[in-house]
Amino acid sequence: MVQKEYVTYNDVHKLCQEAAPRILEEFQPQLMIAIGGGGYVPARILRSFLKKSGSPNISIQAIGLSLYEQLPSTHPSRSNTPGEVEQPGTKVTRTQWLDLTSLGEMKNLVGKRILIVDEVDDTRTTLEYAVRELEKDVEAARQKLGVEGEKTVFSIFVLHNKNKEKKGTLPDDMMAEDRYLAARTVGDVWICYPWEAVDIDEHDAMAAKQNAAASA
Amino acid sequence: MVQKEYVTYNDVHKLCQEAAPRILEEFQPQLMIAIGGGGYVPARILRSFLKKSGSPNISIQAIGLSLYEQLPSTHPSRSNTPGEVEQPGTKVTRTQWLDLTSLGEMKNLVGKRILIVDEVDDTRTTLEYAVRELEKDVEAARQKLGVEGEKTVFSIFVLHNKNKEKKGTLPDDMMAEDRYLAARTVGDVWICYPWEAVDIDEHDAMAAKQNAAASA
Repeated sequence: MVQKEYVTYNDVHKLCQEAAPRILEEFQPQLMIAIGGGGYVPARILRSFLKKSGSPNISIQAIGLSLYEQLPSTHPSRSNTPGEVEQPGTKVTRTQWLDLTSLGEMKNLVGKRILIVDEVDDTRTTLEYAVRELEKDVEAARQKLGVEGEKTVFSIFVLHNKNKEKKGTLPDDMMAEDRYLAARTVGDVWICYPWEAVDIDEHDAMAAKQNAAASA
Repeated sequence: MVQKEYVTYNDVHKLCQEAAPRILEEFQPQLMIAIGGGGYVPARILRSFLKKSGSPNISIQAIGLSLYEQLPSTHPSRSNTPGEVEQPGTKVTRTQWLDLTSLGEMKNLVGKRILIVDEVDDTRTTLEYAVRELEKDVEAARQKLGVEGEKTVFSIFVLHNKNKEKKGTLPDDMMAEDRYLAARTVGDVWICYPWEAVDIDEHDAMAAKQNAAASA
C-alpha cells in the first residue's frame, strides 16, 4: 500500500512563506509561470510573499499541462531525454500556453528571470516539458528580436520533490547553478493536497494525526 | 474604520464545495476561466468538486486582469456602461488573456457553457470587462467559423459579492437567467483572504474570534 501524506492548506502556505526569502535572494524572479492546475495555489500564495513594499506584484502567467501516463513501454524505467517526451510511457498535453498578445509576442520574457511554479515534482516529465518548451520559445523570440547576450534564466519552485527515479531531466546548468528549489523532499508517497480533499476537516485531522505520530 | 472579514482556506474550500452542486445543475460548465490572481485558488478547488466520476476534469483557462483605480472622476459614483470601462475612475489591464493556440483559435469556446471564476465581486468592473471581452472574442470566432445558433453561455461564480453600488454591469440576460452565483453576499467590508495573510495562524485565530463573536 502506498503511504499517504496529508498536506493542509496552512502547510502549503507556510512552505511558500519559508521558501520566499531564498527565492527572492537567489532567483530574483521578475515573472512567475504557474503550471496549472497544481501550480495555481502555490503561485498565488508565493506572490504575496515575494512582493516587496513599494514594488508592484510579480505577474503570474498560467500554463496548463496534462500528463497522461500511457501503456508502459518495453523499457518502463528508462529515462526520457529532451525531445523524446512523447515516447511511450508519458505524454504531455498543453491545455493552455502563454498568451503571446499580452506578453508582447514573447519579447517580455527575453532576458528575464522567470520562476516556474508547480505543486509536485513526481516523474519530472511535466517540468522537463515546461522548461524545454519555454526555453525554445524564448530562444526563438530572442533570435527574432536580434538581441545578443540577453540570457533568460529559468528557475523552479515546487512544494514537494519526490525522491525517486525521474523520467524527465532538467537542464544541467539549472541543476549546477542550483536554480531548483523544493520546499520539501519526500519519498515516493501519495501526497494528498488539500484542494483534492472531499472532506477538508477530515483531511486536516488526518494530517494532524500523521504529524503527531511522526513526532511521537 | 472599514470592518475586516477574515476568511480561512478551509472556508474557501467549503464555499466552493457548497456551490458545486448548484453550479453542476444550473450552469453545467464545460470550461472554467479563472481570473487571476484571486480566481486561481477557488477555480482549482472547484475543479475537484465539479469532477464527475468517469469524466475528465473540467479544464481551467487562466486570464490575468489588473484593476487600477485611478484618480476619482468628477462623477465618482456614476456607473460605467459597457464600452466605457477605461473612463477615469477605473482601468482594467490584461496581464494574460486566453491562449488562442491551445484553444484552437477560440473555436473551442463557441457554443460552450463557460464558468468565469473570481474571488470577489467588489465594484464589478473586472467582471464586466471579462464578460464583455470574452463575449466579443467568442462572437468574432463564431462569425469567422460561420456557425449559426451555437450560443456560448457564460456564467459567473465568486466567493463573495459585496453588496454595494457597482461601477460595472453584467449582461441583462445573465442576471435574468440567474447565471451569477456568489457563495456569500457581504457588506462593503475588507475581505481578508488567506493567501494574503503574513501569519496564517494569526489569520485563522482572527477568523475564529470573529465567528465566535458572530454566534455569541
